Amino acid sequence: MEIELLRDLATPNSAKILLCVVDGLGGLPDAETRRSEMEAASLPNLDRMASDSVCGLTVPVGYGVSPGSGPGHLALFGYDPLKYEVGRGVLESLGIDFDLRDTDVAARGNFCTLDADGLITDRRAGRIPTEETTQLVERLREIKLPGVELILEPVREHRWVLVLRGEGLEDGLTQTDPEREGVVPPPVRALRPEAERTAGLVNDFIEQAQKKLFEQPTANGVLLRGFAKHPDFPPMPEFTRMRTGAFAVYPMYRGLAKLVGMTAAPGGGNPKSKVDEVRAAWDDFDFFFYHFKPADAAGEDGNYKAKVAALEQFDALVPELRSLGADVMMVAGDHSTPAQMAAHSWHPVPFMINSTLGERDRVNEFTETACLAGALGTFPAKEVLSLAMAHANKLMKFGA
Amino acid sequence: MEIELLRDLATPNSAKILLCVVDGLGGLPDAETRRSEMEAASLPNLDRMASDSVCGLTVPVGYGVSPGSGPGHLALFGYDPLKYEVGRGVLESLGIDFDLRDTDVAARGNFCTLDADGLITDRRAGRIPTEETTQLVERLREIKLPGVELILEPVREHRWVLVLRGEGLEDGLTQTDPEREGVVPPPVRALRPEAERTAGLVNDFIEQAQKKLFEQPTANGVLLRGFAKHPDFPPMPEFTRMRTGAFAVYPMYRGLAKLVGMTAAPGGGNPKSKVDEVRAAWDDFDFFFYHFKPADAAGEDGNYKAKVAALEQFDALVPELRSLGADVMMVAGDHSTPAQMAAHSWHPVPFMINSTLGERDRVNEFTETACLAGALGTFPAKEVLSLAMAHANKLMKFGA
Repeated sequence: MEIELLRDLATPNSAKILLCVVDGLGGLPDAETRRSEMEAASLPNLDRMASDSVCGLTVPVGYGVSPGSGPGHLALFGYDPLKYEVGRGVLESLGIDFDLRDTDVAARGNFCTLDADGLITDRRAGRIPTEETTQLVERLREIKLPGVELILEPVREHRWVLVLRGEGLEDGLTQTDPEREGVVPPPVRALRPEAERTAGLVNDFIEQAQKKLFEQPTANGVLLRGFAKHPDFPPMPEFTRMRTGAFAVYPMYRGLAKLVGMTAAPGGGNPKSKVDEVRAAWDDFDFFFYHFKPADAAGEDGNYKAKVAALEQFDALVPELRSLGADVMMVAGDHSTPAQMAAHSWHPVPFMINSTLGERDRVNEFTETACLAGALGTFPAKEVLSLAMAHANKLMKFGA
Repeated sequence: MEIELLRDLATPNSAKILLCVVDGLGGLPDAETRRSEMEAASLPNLDRMASDSVCGLTVPVGYGVSPGSGPGHLALFGYDPLKYEVGRGVLESLGIDFDLRDTDVAARGNFCTLDADGLITDRRAGRIPTEETTQLVERLREIKLPGVELILEPVREHRWVLVLRGEGLEDGLTQTDPEREGVVPPPVRALRPEAERTAGLVNDFIEQAQKKLFEQPTANGVLLRGFAKHPDFPPMPEFTRMRTGAFAVYPMYRGLAKLVGMTAAPGGGNPKSKVDEVRAAWDDFDFFFYHFKPADAAGEDGNYKAKVAALEQFDALVPELRSLGADVMMVAGDHSTPAQMAAHSWHPVPFMINSTLGERDRVNEFTETACLAGALGTFPAKEVLSLAMAHANKLMKFGA
């Protein structure tokens, strides 16, 4: 349901909801064995849980849409990802655990290679190592702009984040990355009159940066895109009336959780230590977001076997997660990451919800094809939160 | 997904997509044998393809909506048929291969029978033969209207098309067909002030036509409806970044394809010769729309056996269609045409998509009931294009 309706119906109680997100959960059949990663993996604990749960498949964003981590998670947190968009600059900042302020404008930066005529010859400057980017970013920090503070942070390889901090800054700027080579990067243009000053400041920065990088062999230019301010989303605790806590090893997911108003436990650690942290914080929250990354990482690497192993690694944690005693426990994915594609995909993602209020279905394995027969059918991921709250008896009747 | 998002995500590559539309594909069980036309037909090639594809059922427009050819096809081309409407006047013009200009206003005309008091006694003038309509249309062509060119074309039986050509013409007119007998046909009224002049011209035409037909025994009146201009839809090649080609025997389907910006191969020929034309044009397009009419024609005739035979005729073409080597090949229907109903129906239509990126399902027959177990579930036909482009790797990731 829409957030507005959820806000009307939400009513607090002491029930606990645990959302386990296995990043990149779904997959595709292997060409030879015709079995998907989930089918090939030995997942006794998930299978047992499935036989005891209501199953189905979630459509992360829409038919044919392969989502990034942002929209994939926002949907599971109850936000329509087509309505609640997060700019790339903000996502990159979340990914390095940078604390954006509401008035900041953030952008994703790339070092690139330009030829003598200023044409782009490599948009990624040969993917220079992170160490080199760190040194170059250090030099760009010397740049001064009138009336604003300039913050630069290296990310990985040729990538970094640019943040402009000050009053009256606006997003709504075109990107300088033409997304192809052989052309001169265009200057930033304001898409709204209010953003004119910010556009001017960014172009000033680019000009100074180009001068500082002039003698570099490969990384002698900069490309900027995804200018964005911290979005102003309705906070989950407000419209769900739940205390919400996030438990994730990586900064991107902690950042996404903070974006929707969750309290994020410190990063780092590993999937097992995060379970312990959930247990230790059991009295502090009503809704727990537990994030498990290795399945997506293996899928993105195109490594079928590693993905199978990652799924088995998660399966081994399931008894401990169940022993927490949540009233409603879900296993979901933000999107599929088939090893065959080595990328996020649009395919619907297996899902299950365990509680005392679930209808019975005949699914007793946790795989893509088995979940097709689940009582939840194939449904939009943005409905997961509503379903969870309903199963936890946290929603009042609609209408008299 | 919406066309706006598709435009943002579309990225060209060399993959080929083949959409085979079996017009009126789905059916209903026969009262005695309890088997639908698809179940009764021997479809070995489609069954084999199903076992190798992802299956499902498409809802052409919405629950309970039996679509005409226009909305049925527009949905498969990615257009929400409730948002992108084509007036009947335009559809009739497409059906006779008439080249409408952007400023033309077209309407569907019927000859009807009026009694001495001007009341309608037969809305179809006894379905006079096409030859008679052709002669009567010839007489109506003598009518002159100030400042506009008048174009009349016979269609079939009592039906014809009226086109007003000139500057400043507007649609948004009420129909003169009251859709019942025993009443006087009302004059045309403008629904918008800009259409007042056009309404006046049409009423002038009707008055002159009535005089010219006065002495006819049956066809002594005219009824007009579906006043419409050529709609201005976003063209498929623009928002999909694909070169799109249409291969259809009948003008209506070539016309619908042209309406969305496809290049339409010449009409005529037969289902087999159209396959040859697709093969000959293989290098010219990225997206091929192949139209197969006989299943719908047999269904509309209420001829169960003929529909079974038409499906078998299509099945025999499947090996050749598959041998074209499309990266993504689909078999779809624009709607069901159950022989039992002798009409288009709202029933969801079997659908399959064949590619290397499809998830596995357990469907190994191509029938209405078998497709219910498909991994695609039952989904809106307007999502077919997004799915096809995703399976062809022609869509970028949404969000970071």
